[in-house]
Amino acid sequence: MSADPMPGLQPSNNMRARRLALDTHDQPVILTRRDCPVCRSEGFSAHARVRVQNGSQRIIATLYQIDSDWLAEGEAGLSESAWKRLKINEGDEVHLSHPQPLNSLSLVRGRIWGRRFTRQALNEIMTDVAAGRYADIHISMLLTVMATAGLDEDEVISLTDAMIRAGDRLRWSRDPIVDKHCVGGLPGNRTTPLVVAIVAANGLWMPKTSSRAITSPAGTADTMETLAPVDLDLKAMQRVVEREGGCVVWGGAVRLSPVDDMLIRVARVMDLDAEAQLVASVLSKKIAAGSSHLVLDLPVGPTAKIREQSEARELGQRLKNVAENFGLATRVLITDGRAPVGRGIGPALEARDIIAVLGNHADAPADLRERSLLLSAELMELAGLAEPGQGRELAEKTLNSGAAAKKFEAICLAQGGMREPPVARRRYVILAKRRGRVAGIDNRRLGRVAKLAGAPGAPAAGVELHCNLNDDIEREQPLYTIHADTTGELNYAREFAFSNGDIIDVAAAD
Amino acid sequence: MSADPMPGLQPSNNMRARRLALDTHDQPVILTRRDCPVCRSEGFSAHARVRVQNGSQRIIATLYQIDSDWLAEGEAGLSESAWKRLKINEGDEVHLSHPQPLNSLSLVRGRIWGRRFTRQALNEIMTDVAAGRYADIHISMLLTVMATAGLDEDEVISLTDAMIRAGDRLRWSRDPIVDKHCVGGLPGNRTTPLVVAIVAANGLWMPKTSSRAITSPAGTADTMETLAPVDLDLKAMQRVVEREGGCVVWGGAVRLSPVDDMLIRVARVMDLDAEAQLVASVLSKKIAAGSSHLVLDLPVGPTAKIREQSEARELGQRLKNVAENFGLATRVLITDGRAPVGRGIGPALEARDIIAVLGNHADAPADLRERSLLLSAELMELAGLAEPGQGRELAEKTLNSGAAAKKFEAICLAQGGMREPPVARRRYVILAKRRGRVAGIDNRRLGRVAKLAGAPGAPAAGVELHCNLNDDIEREQPLYTIHADTTGELNYAREFAFSNGDIIDVAAAD
Repeated sequence: MSADPMPGLQPSNNMRARRLALDTHDQPVILTRRDCPVCRSEGFSAHARVRVQNGSQRIIATLYQIDSDWLAEGEAGLSESAWKRLKINEGDEVHLSHPQPLNSLSLVRGRIWGRRFTRQALNEIMTDVAAGRYADIHISMLLTVMATAGLDEDEVISLTDAMIRAGDRLRWSRDPIVDKHCVGGLPGNRTTPLVVAIVAANGLWMPKTSSRAITSPAGTADTMETLAPVDLDLKAMQRVVEREGGCVVWGGAVRLSPVDDMLIRVARVMDLDAEAQLVASVLSKKIAAGSSHLVLDLPVGPTAKIREQSEARELGQRLKNVAENFGLATRVLITDGRAPVGRGIGPALEARDIIAVLGNHADAPADLRERSLLLSAELMELAGLAEPGQGRELAEKTLNSGAAAKKFEAICLAQGGMREPPVARRRYVILAKRRGRVAGIDNRRLGRVAKLAGAPGAPAAGVELHCNLNDDIEREQPLYTIHADTTGELNYAREFAFSNGDIIDVAAAD
Repeated sequence: MSADPMPGLQPSNNMRARRLALDTHDQPVILTRRDCPVCRSEGFSAHARVRVQNGSQRIIATLYQIDSDWLAEGEAGLSESAWKRLKINEGDEVHLSHPQPLNSLSLVRGRIWGRRFTRQALNEIMTDVAAGRYADIHISMLLTVMATAGLDEDEVISLTDAMIRAGDRLRWSRDPIVDKHCVGGLPGNRTTPLVVAIVAANGLWMPKTSSRAITSPAGTADTMETLAPVDLDLKAMQRVVEREGGCVVWGGAVRLSPVDDMLIRVARVMDLDAEAQLVASVLSKKIAAGSSHLVLDLPVGPTAKIREQSEARELGQRLKNVAENFGLATRVLITDGRAPVGRGIGPALEARDIIAVLGNHADAPADLRERSLLLSAELMELAGLAEPGQGRELAEKTLNSGAAAKKFEAICLAQGGMREPPVARRRYVILAKRRGRVAGIDNRRLGRVAKLAGAPGAPAAGVELHCNLNDDIEREQPLYTIHADTTGELNYAREFAFSNGDIIDVAAAD
């Protein structure tokens, strides 16, 4: 059938693997010499996406090429991320080939042109994302089209389902299993560990998986990590819950909706939060974790993630509809999101607030305590543990008696041991420029200051607030303190604070 | 003002630059030891985006970290792309810092949420893209939102203007300056070099800049490059046009709308062609090149880029409106795009078709000749060189007399010398499975075969067609030949051809 018959000999396309001790974060990289015969015969060039195989382990890596004797002939250098995913040993051979064209990418492009996602399409896409077959460029394309087009409810249900299927799913020996979630945007709003402690102390099971920060200075997992280990696997997590009734672990370590964390990594570079991704992200984790009852907290405020009541009602309805499609009983609370909650913004600083509330300290932030009691009460009523209107009293009793604090310590211990949150090496205090009353606090810009100071990467970094809305303030009274581990970061944060107007708006006294 | 005064000493943040001879393509990469004090004091971690400065040259690079003595203390390794853009010498010091948050990215996110782009917003975005401040993830976000939301006409005009401003702009000593453009999707449709030769032989000036392939197996620049150098700078290009009246050079080398090529590189990984980007891309190049008269060819067919007449009319109108907003006289031709044009698909194979038409060879592809005559005629009429209805005769005379061939050779010579297109090392012939008539040719899948065979990266690779629509075919008659340089690529292309049904549909004879 051929005018120029194919040679019988196929090049082996095998190369010796070498560990480069090269940290490229999640992005798998393979490095070859430019004169490598495999690359030449396959037509690979720099920045190509290449399939690398070690036995049954397969990844798609970005290829870089080098003109240097750093690599010997026939050697392929691998980044740490590639090395670990391929599970190889030094000197093992890896097989290089062209990746198959991904059919699911044409489904993403189809969505750009207005063709709705089918259930099957989203399953295919999420399977490919879970297997690491999407480059960051492709994940960005997927997230952007979902945000721009706005998926309809059927699509969000299918997306949620596809994200659940791409990971593990927990089954529990009892019922109900409760959970709560807050749709972020409110710096310092770290009620989760408190709610877990309160409801678990009352015998409810709450296997909580939390995320790390997307665009905020701290996620619940970041904060909890300054108090106890959160990288538990599924079995360890189950042991903790069966023993203590509750846990607060990082969702990424337990493979419940693992795609979520891959999307979040790219969304963070984009600084993008999109509704469909948000709904599917929240609910896929809860459903995969085996929850039966869910309370959702949607704070609304001019600089919160949700700015309008109408927007909150719409999102709440969307969350409720999708959740109940999966048999998850859901209550939506729309709360006040006009100002940060607690004093700390940043992992360790928020952890200190939690400890203060649990300990019933006199100076514990009252707003954080209030919110935690409200959510615990709603959750206990929804799950039938308290009669309507009786939840609040039960929650308060649990906190005041020290039962919640005791439960929290027991959970930390079961997760691997309770620890002291770290303290930042450098601090800088921002003072009031005039006498007056606190008329507004810009959550977003305050969050930005905390991020520039190093949060959440540096757990001790962030912002410590010294005032609340409507407080009367003297001239030169401290408004907030920036905490950072390095001078460079302290400078960035300070510079931003000075060049961005009044992040805390002190209205002059008449 | 500070509770913990800042130390007076700032770390210098300088490191010795080392050239790694590392090819990472366009993506600038900087490599440091994980224990490097600059990274620790600044809080840089792997996969961060870092600003690297050498005097007035500044880039944003991706940081990777290594645990190895390959780098000495205080050394920062740089990829070739970083090295060249920073214009440094071995041992020079580079300064590392955090990149400023990009305001223009919040404008891109704003478009996701439905806020239209202003002129100012697009200028800001394009300035940042041109300066290399967008990561691939951000460019993907920008392209996807433009494709999904569909920019309105004012936005497309502003985008076009912003793309022109982000580069150089040519002014010519005479008028008219003509140009043509075909909105791709038709494999092998390589009329440009023929049109340039015909109209320049008649004294019109046609300073043609062409792109490389986005999602197709060959762009005009790829094809022309197999016949003459196309990487001319602006001065060299002007010399060629002033001497010969025409040129066919790569647009990327002359900094006319340079952003376009940066967008195209990412669009290629996404396999995405979007209307707003298409219109702005086409017109920004023409306007920056100083054109006054433009003919646009929009082929329509079931597997062409444009599938419906209505879609072509709409796009044509959009192109015409935007063009005329910039004072560019424009004629839109909607042509037959049901099948590939010429025989070759892939740079060198298409170049051979051009040479055959110029030489008036008996076996020259008639469809390519016809299209080139039509476009030349329209262009000469639009520019006032021929009376309405007289252009065709003039074009034909120019081709038949050998004047076009002579002009083409002179242009190639002026661009740096005419050369012979390369020939592929491996070939495989696809035969008809039955006797019958050619009822359809799938442009897209045929283009895919050519790409899997290595086009356009391997210029000799591609597909050579042996039949046209409506031809009568015997069983086992050759339909097309796959050309490739490597066995691997030939295999991929062949496998795709066999597993994708009838790319050339031979309807059984009754």
